[in-house]
Amino acid sequence: MFRNPVREKWAAGQAVANGWLSIASPFVAEIMAAQGYDSVTIDLQHGFVGLEAAGAMLQAMRASDAALMARVPWLDPGDIMKVLDAGAHGIICPMINTPEEAARLVSYVRYPPVGVRSFGPTRALFAAGADYGQHADREILCFAMIETGEAVNNLEAIVATPGLDGVYIGPADLTLGLTGRKYRTGFDREEPEVVDAIRHILDTAHSAGIRAGLHNGSAAYASKAVGWGFDLVTISNDVRLLAGAAGESLAAFRRSVGEGETAGGKQAQGGY
Amino acid sequence: MFRNPVREKWAAGQAVANGWLSIASPFVAEIMAAQGYDSVTIDLQHGFVGLEAAGAMLQAMRASDAALMARVPWLDPGDIMKVLDAGAHGIICPMINTPEEAARLVSYVRYPPVGVRSFGPTRALFAAGADYGQHADREILCFAMIETGEAVNNLEAIVATPGLDGVYIGPADLTLGLTGRKYRTGFDREEPEVVDAIRHILDTAHSAGIRAGLHNGSAAYASKAVGWGFDLVTISNDVRLLAGAAGESLAAFRRSVGEGETAGGKQAQGGY
Amino acid sequence: MFRNPVREKWAAGQAVANGWLSIASPFVAEIMAAQGYDSVTIDLQHGFVGLEAAGAMLQAMRASDAALMARVPWLDPGDIMKVLDAGAHGIICPMINTPEEAARLVSYVRYPPVGVRSFGPTRALFAAGADYGQHADREILCFAMIETGEAVNNLEAIVATPGLDGVYIGPADLTLGLTGRKYRTGFDREEPEVVDAIRHILDTAHSAGIRAGLHNGSAAYASKAVGWGFDLVTISNDVRLLAGAAGESLAAFRRSVGEGETAGGKQAQGGY
Amino acid sequence: MFRNPVREKWAAGQAVANGWLSIASPFVAEIMAAQGYDSVTIDLQHGFVGLEAAGAMLQAMRASDAALMARVPWLDPGDIMKVLDAGAHGIICPMINTPEEAARLVSYVRYPPVGVRSFGPTRALFAAGADYGQHADREILCFAMIETGEAVNNLEAIVATPGLDGVYIGPADLTLGLTGRKYRTGFDREEPEVVDAIRHILDTAHSAGIRAGLHNGSAAYASKAVGWGFDLVTISNDVRLLAGAAGESLAAFRRSVGEGETAGGKQAQGGY
Amino acid sequence: MFRNPVREKWAAGQAVANGWLSIASPFVAEIMAAQGYDSVTIDLQHGFVGLEAAGAMLQAMRASDAALMARVPWLDPGDIMKVLDAGAHGIICPMINTPEEAARLVSYVRYPPVGVRSFGPTRALFAAGADYGQHADREILCFAMIETGEAVNNLEAIVATPGLDGVYIGPADLTLGLTGRKYRTGFDREEPEVVDAIRHILDTAHSAGIRAGLHNGSAAYASKAVGWGFDLVTISNDVRLLAGAAGESLAAFRRSVGEGETAGGKQAQGGY
Amino acid sequence: MFRNPVREKWAAGQAVANGWLSIASPFVAEIMAAQGYDSVTIDLQHGFVGLEAAGAMLQAMRASDAALMARVPWLDPGDIMKVLDAGAHGIICPMINTPEEAARLVSYVRYPPVGVRSFGPTRALFAAGADYGQHADREILCFAMIETGEAVNNLEAIVATPGLDGVYIGPADLTLGLTGRKYRTGFDREEPEVVDAIRHILDTAHSAGIRAGLHNGSAAYASKAVGWGFDLVTISNDVRLLAGAAGESLAAFRRSVGEGETAGGKQAQGGY
Repeated sequence: MFRNPVREKWAAGQAVANGWLSIASPFVAEIMAAQGYDSVTIDLQHGFVGLEAAGAMLQAMRASDAALMARVPWLDPGDIMKVLDAGAHGIICPMINTPEEAARLVSYVRYPPVGVRSFGPTRALFAAGADYGQHADREILCFAMIETGEAVNNLEAIVATPGLDGVYIGPADLTLGLTGRKYRTGFDREEPEVVDAIRHILDTAHSAGIRAGLHNGSAAYASKAVGWGFDLVTISNDVRLLAGAAGESLAAFRRSVGEGETAGGKQAQGGY
Repeated sequence: MFRNPVREKWAAGQAVANGWLSIASPFVAEIMAAQGYDSVTIDLQHGFVGLEAAGAMLQAMRASDAALMARVPWLDPGDIMKVLDAGAHGIICPMINTPEEAARLVSYVRYPPVGVRSFGPTRALFAAGADYGQHADREILCFAMIETGEAVNNLEAIVATPGLDGVYIGPADLTLGLTGRKYRTGFDREEPEVVDAIRHILDTAHSAGIRAGLHNGSAAYASKAVGWGFDLVTISNDVRLLAGAAGESLAAFRRSVGEGETAGGKQAQGGY
Repeated sequence: MFRNPVREKWAAGQAVANGWLSIASPFVAEIMAAQGYDSVTIDLQHGFVGLEAAGAMLQAMRASDAALMARVPWLDPGDIMKVLDAGAHGIICPMINTPEEAARLVSYVRYPPVGVRSFGPTRALFAAGADYGQHADREILCFAMIETGEAVNNLEAIVATPGLDGVYIGPADLTLGLTGRKYRTGFDREEPEVVDAIRHILDTAHSAGIRAGLHNGSAAYASKAVGWGFDLVTISNDVRLLAGAAGESLAAFRRSVGEGETAGGKQAQGGY
Repeated sequence: MFRNPVREKWAAGQAVANGWLSIASPFVAEIMAAQGYDSVTIDLQHGFVGLEAAGAMLQAMRASDAALMARVPWLDPGDIMKVLDAGAHGIICPMINTPEEAARLVSYVRYPPVGVRSFGPTRALFAAGADYGQHADREILCFAMIETGEAVNNLEAIVATPGLDGVYIGPADLTLGLTGRKYRTGFDREEPEVVDAIRHILDTAHSAGIRAGLHNGSAAYASKAVGWGFDLVTISNDVRLLAGAAGESLAAFRRSVGEGETAGGKQAQGGY
Repeated sequence: MFRNPVREKWAAGQAVANGWLSIASPFVAEIMAAQGYDSVTIDLQHGFVGLEAAGAMLQAMRASDAALMARVPWLDPGDIMKVLDAGAHGIICPMINTPEEAARLVSYVRYPPVGVRSFGPTRALFAAGADYGQHADREILCFAMIETGEAVNNLEAIVATPGLDGVYIGPADLTLGLTGRKYRTGFDREEPEVVDAIRHILDTAHSAGIRAGLHNGSAAYASKAVGWGFDLVTISNDVRLLAGAAGESLAAFRRSVGEGETAGGKQAQGGY
Repeated sequence: MFRNPVREKWAAGQAVANGWLSIASPFVAEIMAAQGYDSVTIDLQHGFVGLEAAGAMLQAMRASDAALMARVPWLDPGDIMKVLDAGAHGIICPMINTPEEAARLVSYVRYPPVGVRSFGPTRALFAAGADYGQHADREILCFAMIETGEAVNNLEAIVATPGLDGVYIGPADLTLGLTGRKYRTGFDREEPEVVDAIRHILDTAHSAGIRAGLHNGSAAYASKAVGWGFDLVTISNDVRLLAGAAGESLAAFRRSVGEGETAGGKQAQGGY
């Protein structure tokens, strides 16, 4: 029977450790899924990944115990339903700013009469089993991203959307959205006004009985977020992990042989 | 004018820090090439990379300052010439066991009258410029891998092959080839008999006036190899770097939130 | 001159036998197109097929005598126009629920002044000939899918949309849409209330002088639908056909050698 | 620092010569980018190119001095932001008919507080450098296509849209939109009423202090357009150039050996 | 621990039912692997499948309980080792005509000191686990194809090759090789001289203590072959199964609606 | 019935005009095949094309009246048979230097008892029809490239190889092979000693009753070659045609607007 590992983890009272895929490579997906994350999310929005590659990545992670989710590019029914038919166990949708948008999101993820998802789980049937249709609405996860001032203003109404499983916070956009270009871009915010906003979203979600997830750039910040009560935390992504590890090992080598770190004429470059 | 950055680095009396690509992804290639390696090698032998992906990876690294090399699957003229026409700046060929094989390798890499490389640098012309044909034989690098007992026995004759730029040592195969299954598989050997063999190959190459390269799993060992005199050292690869970084960050998170490292039901898994 | 084989078949008073492609493989498309279908439809909605693969599939079926159509993911002008520029001879659009949506659909499929299709048949010109622009509006087919309660309520207005060639019924969604989860999902409905709805849609389309198509899971049901008057019937799809044939041949083998059908530890699994 | 070559060319008072890519091939992109165009645009609307191929084409043109732009399929935030994150230096958006659509277009291309672009330049960071986020809004170009009667009626309001860099004219659609099927389809219009419309759009854009671009089928017409004052002119595209050159060389051969031009049984066929 | 399901089946005294993949599609592979075959073989020789697609197909079948094997194009060490590193559990090599060729085949499949396989199971490690290197030689299967007169003449010497697990018979080539163009091409031979040759190969293999496999076009013949004693039987392939099922369902429809079978102007076409 | 258009052209006493594909793009193939060439050859040796792309290119050219041939990377049975199974109508094999190599080439292209080609025309059956097997040996073309001094020395023996249809001359390699680096690289040779060699090869082939083909960079030279008696002439290739046409149109524009030809900072760059 098709069961979502994220729901099992939550049922056990634990926070979900989420991996993040920004590289369109089934092998990278396979490597990441082998690390023991509770869930792995393919980023179809900012990641360098299209719908066709996402399908191949879902196939390559088929043997994984992790939940396989997708962040879609936008609130578009065609894309959302396609990635679900391809076998995704959950959807994270960016830029949900109003309760109407949240309701549309839910409707695209659930079959009638709850929603308007069209029936045709062509690959999902093979990955999840013949009983997919009966259990899909119960198992599949639906997250709305809260990342603008408008969304924060509408937060109470958004989190009350029937069928929404949780909110997910993108700190880079939330910071831009709330404070403009006052601060650097990026994750792992330390500015009190941003941290307050993040914790306010978390608490509002919990008050409405739904879950909250946070995008993080490091294990340390992810762990702090769990301490605040977050139910799902993303820990870095494949690009940052690879660029960071490669850059550090090369720098260690350069230091060790007595060359400056940019001996090769170029400084290591990492993800955002 | 087409210049090979590896030759420039050697002319400056420095060892070359080589990156290694085992994932068939142009974006991974682009990320790795941004780290400042002196050269980056696409592994068409053990890497999960085919000839078509290798071409796309060479394109994605086009703006890089690094030399772009390829380890080919075997001593096959079709493959070697194709990857050169695609724009590779050097060839590392596995399992060269005799001087005859070394001579064939050189012949596939050089144009007549030196060798038998067929003329048709279809993409190389765009990547390297209109003068590619004039400078290719001088700039392109040709490495023979020494990794069997037979090769070690024939070493003096192999390193004397006219036109060969260097030998490259794969410690995993060399250990298997020299000692059978006496030791674990892998790189960064510490067994004295293996280390002796590695240094013997290095010294024999240098005596013949050619270069020597070593495949390493860590910056520390690569640095040690430079201390021994190696001219080119590979520092880990994309799979190990990514798996290692992801596994470590997830473990740090698990520890930090008080979960055992295998809370997700699965232990982190790395490359070889 | 560019002629649509479906229109020719209809002119001869015959129903169109439509094949259905859910697998993103040009070779599967080539195999299916060799079977003698009157038309073949690439499913970009529920099929495991993206826009780039659809283009390659259209290329691989270029020599076919069949009309080549596409079911698009949603009522999206970008996708609809792109698949037409790629050479599709017809569009089946899911979830058309109102006459306004039907009018938008038609507008995306026809050039001004009838519609708003942008001119640039980049590949279609090569596949259909230099006179494509003059004949496209007359030859290309435009089907609206009727599969919700809302669509049935608006049916008379939808079928009256100028320029709409026909309606197409997806029985799985129609059943879900009209009766919720009262019945199993799937095609080839036998429930009287669903059959009545299907025949009501057929008759309403015919009353308005347009065509009606039905999605079927078997030749037997497709044949029954022709008996009811349907003008185009889809007969199964590549996934069901392949899974069914493989599963049956393996079961026959298991029986024949005296093994239970699940000797291999796994039951055959088919499409939906 | 990330600089857009188009802005530099304009700063020097010169018109931009733009190449156009309709073939989904990184090598074609690489070949075209080697010709010395000031900018090269990937056509995701009418070109036979999808989002995944566009990413690979941007990678293959990474070493180019040209600005790399994309014409998107439609006014869709998901697609626009994805192609920017992939590294495009500018967006040309079809069918902008109202000032509201123009404002939405600008909002998708600019970060808050100017627009609503979501932050996550995953590949752009590698292609454009670590300071991408600071300079993106200033360097990235945003063109609205004017190609319908409605757009011409709303022109003054459209060109006044804050943040819009220019308008771009597609003469095939503009002719269809303004005159229906009175004239042949295609570029390089000579009909006075169409030429007047083109020059009216140009002048209106200049009056509002923004730029104007024109799609052309030949160098001669592009040059005439520069004479009228156009700031950016597209000169043919890869399909037309290739088909034209191949067809002409084959015809020259047929004539030279005394065969009729269609000796092979088939006439040369070109792009639109 | 990495275990080969084929060896487990044989240990249980049962014949292996093998599926066959000639279509380069990970989804076709996933569908076929869901049917319950004991093993599934990707055909890199005659199949329309290259090495890069084969890797993606192995990934898509990762969750399967079946053994995943590959028929390679030829006795080429580069290809054989690459497909093993990609995770194949067995190799079927065509056109083994002499004991020397059989010995070379075995050497490419086994690590030193048994053979010369180079160590670097880049993806295999992820698919088969960290202990891959220790168990690979014991678990991986090595089949030599016997399909020429020369091979039959050398049969006793070939089957005596140390490390060879079995022979595999391609009846189409064997018939051509033994009898020239006397009979039709294809599988499921009924000619006594060919059947005798097939059973002679089977018996010779068994006398030498190794296994024998047969390529079949139908479940009926496969079952007959098991009755003769074959240890592994291939039952049709994806192309034949799909073409057959589609052709039959369309013919049933045509008959049912009273059209001739070739009403569409084209007869159904199947695989060989 | 499967007929090779090249043989029909020759039967009519005419020289074959051959197009050449060096870009791995099915759409480029489709565009080129639409120009009316008598045959089109996919270059798997120097072209930037792999086996998987070649298959897709053959599919995209399926509706063409041209013969579809392939130049393979080297004298490798696996590659040659694979491209034939994929539907190629002829093979051009580089670097045939001895009669033994010529005999091996023929053997790979013909079924037993003539040769050793393995039977399994998986896609060819769909492209060429069910009678492929009966007619393949008669219709498929087999060309040996003569491009080294050794080949010229062995020429009489090579052209006498039973089953060889013709020789094909690559003037760039032939010039390198015969004269070393005395002259520039490239096609369309004017040096008397090279022209003499070319005409000597042509005459020797004709004396043996087989055909001769020449690779040319221009229609003018191709036409001259037909005057000498060549039976098949290649006229430029896709890369040269595209680069030439784009470069010329941009130069015309630059001149026309009064900019120097390298105003964009870069000179047009063409194929070899």
